[in-house]
Amino acid sequence: MPALLKRIAFEVNGSLLEETNTITSESTDGHYISLRPLLHPTKEQTAFPFEWAFAGTNKDITVSKVSEDTVKEDFLFGFDSNKYLHIPNQHEGPVETYWKTIHNGVREETGEIFPMGKAQPGVKFMEMWQPIDFSKQDLVITDGSVTKGRSVTLKIDTAEYFGLIIVVGQWIQGFLSKKGQHSTEGLSFIRAFETSQGTVNTLVKYGSDFSKFPTLFDALSVGTVVDANGASWETLEAHY
Amino acid sequence: MPALLKRIAFEVNGSLLEETNTITSESTDGHYISLRPLLHPTKEQTAFPFEWAFAGTNKDITVSKVSEDTVKEDFLFGFDSNKYLHIPNQHEGPVETYWKTIHNGVREETGEIFPMGKAQPGVKFMEMWQPIDFSKQDLVITDGSVTKGRSVTLKIDTAEYFGLIIVVGQWIQGFLSKKGQHSTEGLSFIRAFETSQGTVNTLVKYGSDFSKFPTLFDALSVGTVVDANGASWETLEAHY
Repeated sequence: MPALLKRIAFEVNGSLLEETNTITSESTDGHYISLRPLLHPTKEQTAFPFEWAFAGTNKDITVSKVSEDTVKEDFLFGFDSNKYLHIPNQHEGPVETYWKTIHNGVREETGEIFPMGKAQPGVKFMEMWQPIDFSKQDLVITDGSVTKGRSVTLKIDTAEYFGLIIVVGQWIQGFLSKKGQHSTEGLSFIRAFETSQGTVNTLVKYGSDFSKFPTLFDALSVGTVVDANGASWETLEAHY
Repeated sequence: MPALLKRIAFEVNGSLLEETNTITSESTDGHYISLRPLLHPTKEQTAFPFEWAFAGTNKDITVSKVSEDTVKEDFLFGFDSNKYLHIPNQHEGPVETYWKTIHNGVREETGEIFPMGKAQPGVKFMEMWQPIDFSKQDLVITDGSVTKGRSVTLKIDTAEYFGLIIVVGQWIQGFLSKKGQHSTEGLSFIRAFETSQGTVNTLVKYGSDFSKFPTLFDALSVGTVVDANGASWETLEAHY
């Protein structure tokens, strides 16, 4: 089932913070994207106003049930903006996380990252996620029990580009990276809301290849190729 | 400034949970009410489907600034449903809490209660609060920066009744208790949303004296007395 999750708070080293407007899309088939734009970027950060962004298909994540209310998710990160940008102090290998869902639908994610490699002490973190109503543009708190909704995923993996775009309900999130560039100029991101009338309200717009994101997500089938200004996206998933 | 806060999660003894749909109203003048109805009451709980409810005027709370992002709030509880119902294992004396606001407006409340008295070890807790848009009936996530809004508080303190009702924006929350009764039959609660057309959508309705809550909150002045089916409420605060 598709879900749209708003990060409410992030805790690291015992300190609670939230410097971003982070939203994660989870598709019905298990593909995912998390965009983490900064709430108040500094002057230096305006060139790339993101804390992080990552995405992957269901091949880039391993999910296993731990107990009635908890699942383990090992993130393999098909795409990781830090890795793309060769930023140091990132995790090494898959990030093992535990997701506990409490009665109001809120999910508590806990895990540990190993910026210096697994031989060195790790850094524990907690992230609190609030399911939001993916049919509305306002960030409306829900209990996550609505399981019906459009779930469409397209992928691009050509000589020039690597990208993923996921549509959950009316919410669109995607990334597009130029292969081999490894600088912020090679990255594009989209977060948008499609109204019931079909108008797309862009909420996050970043990158020189922004026009190469697809914009029409209806009447697709698995395998359908969509062209967006020369970029060829393949439909991985299309649930309506 | 008025605020409406939705509790996202509650942590006690290291365990995260949320069994309620808790919303707290804070008025401009510092009066407060917190209604904590159970999400999934058991058969035994249906007679009184609340975890807790409390309220107070600004005389029943002491607020002091601790640092740039943190205030200390000592709750004295003008009204406390547990105390009213003579339920054991409640706090003794004021509850000292620390409220840290992070960049997205979310507030982390931490504190300790002493159910066995202060001579015995206390129980630490954490509550995570999300500011919500008090102009909308959907629980819309905001960063808490909207400071303008209707803030109206009425109090009743007669031979028969003790109660408080607070209106923040379009949201109404109130309690009414019969003096000396000390059973659930003596308690009434209201949570409601008033649309811009003036229709009142009742969200929580409890108690045999429900009809004794006032329903009109416009054009009041401090001191104005409002009658609600024989119950006389006095306006403590009226900001429009």
